[in-house]
Amino acid sequence: MPKLWNQTIDAHRHAVRDAVLDAAAELVEGGGLRAVTMSQLAERAGIGRATLYKYFPDAEAVLAAWHERQITAHLAQLREAANRPGPAVQRLTGVLTAYADLAGQRHGGELAAHLHQSAHVGHAEQHLTHLIATLITEGADAGNFRRDVPPAELAAYCLHALTAATALTMPDARDRLVNVTLHGLRPVP
Amino acid sequence: MPKLWNQTIDAHRHAVRDAVLDAAAELVEGGGLRAVTMSQLAERAGIGRATLYKYFPDAEAVLAAWHERQITAHLAQLREAANRPGPAVQRLTGVLTAYADLAGQRHGGELAAHLHQSAHVGHAEQHLTHLIATLITEGADAGNFRRDVPPAELAAYCLHALTAATALTMPDARDRLVNVTLHGLRPVP
Repeated sequence: MPKLWNQTIDAHRHAVRDAVLDAAAELVEGGGLRAVTMSQLAERAGIGRATLYKYFPDAEAVLAAWHERQITAHLAQLREAANRPGPAVQRLTGVLTAYADLAGQRHGGELAAHLHQSAHVGHAEQHLTHLIATLITEGADAGNFRRDVPPAELAAYCLHALTAATALTMPDARDRLVNVTLHGLRPVP
Repeated sequence: MPKLWNQTIDAHRHAVRDAVLDAAAELVEGGGLRAVTMSQLAERAGIGRATLYKYFPDAEAVLAAWHERQITAHLAQLREAANRPGPAVQRLTGVLTAYADLAGQRHGGELAAHLHQSAHVGHAEQHLTHLIATLITEGADAGNFRRDVPPAELAAYCLHALTAATALTMPDARDRLVNVTLHGLRPVP
């Protein structure tokens, strides 16, 4: 087959896959993670059920793929916040605020807990811990953060502290949480 | 029946129940939460399977009861640390250190996540949040903690930050985590 044709097929496959994951996102938004069925997914994505089964074996596989896409997008968003110009303290504040906002949007329940145990989440958390530890090291070099605790431990502390945002719906409360968490990183006089 | 006889039956029931829960604890310690079966529980507790089924319908019910007993014991331990004599800062340090140690011992896996979603855990967390918020208020009155964030939010921050201890096996690292978390509570100059 000519290369162009292969690329067309590839682009088509990606488009169908994306449409299914968008459908999953809409259904999750509407009725929670448990409510999603293959029939609903096919209907919402505008494809036949037989086609859908060529892409995914079951609804759980769709949800896992959707979740993976979410995690990847979130990580890209946090990485972007980390790479903005400005001092490390300011960039870390941006990353932690974005993370608290994402935690505040998180869908609850048992299936969510199940999805969050996936290997993909583990990798993303490792990346994120490394990203935050790097900013903390940079900020410590500038005298803004403490040096008596390893940066990786401080990064893990940040990520865990900010999961308190899952119970906070008001942006003010989330800002206070970020502020308190950052304060824990400050040098001890 | 005479009252004394009732009390004897009651004490016997409690003793059997406790023996079953002790057996569950030992089995969990040995092989993880999933490995526990009714046959093993009966054998380890030194009772017949038929007797065991009079007390619990299945292994999951035993694990739920064991977990409830654990949570109650942990809460009592933390309450005791909160009620010791001394200034609020010192007592809060004791509570948070004990909590970090308990988090460090926590059994992982899917069933653990499932157990942790029980209503009993929710109530225990509410009690604990209240306990910590009270100590923070007391410490803030003495000028040791910040006043710009509601104590309940600070208490939730503490409990979430300390769950980072689940990945920390070294007591030194847990002490550093408690220290960083407490520092977040300090007044902003």
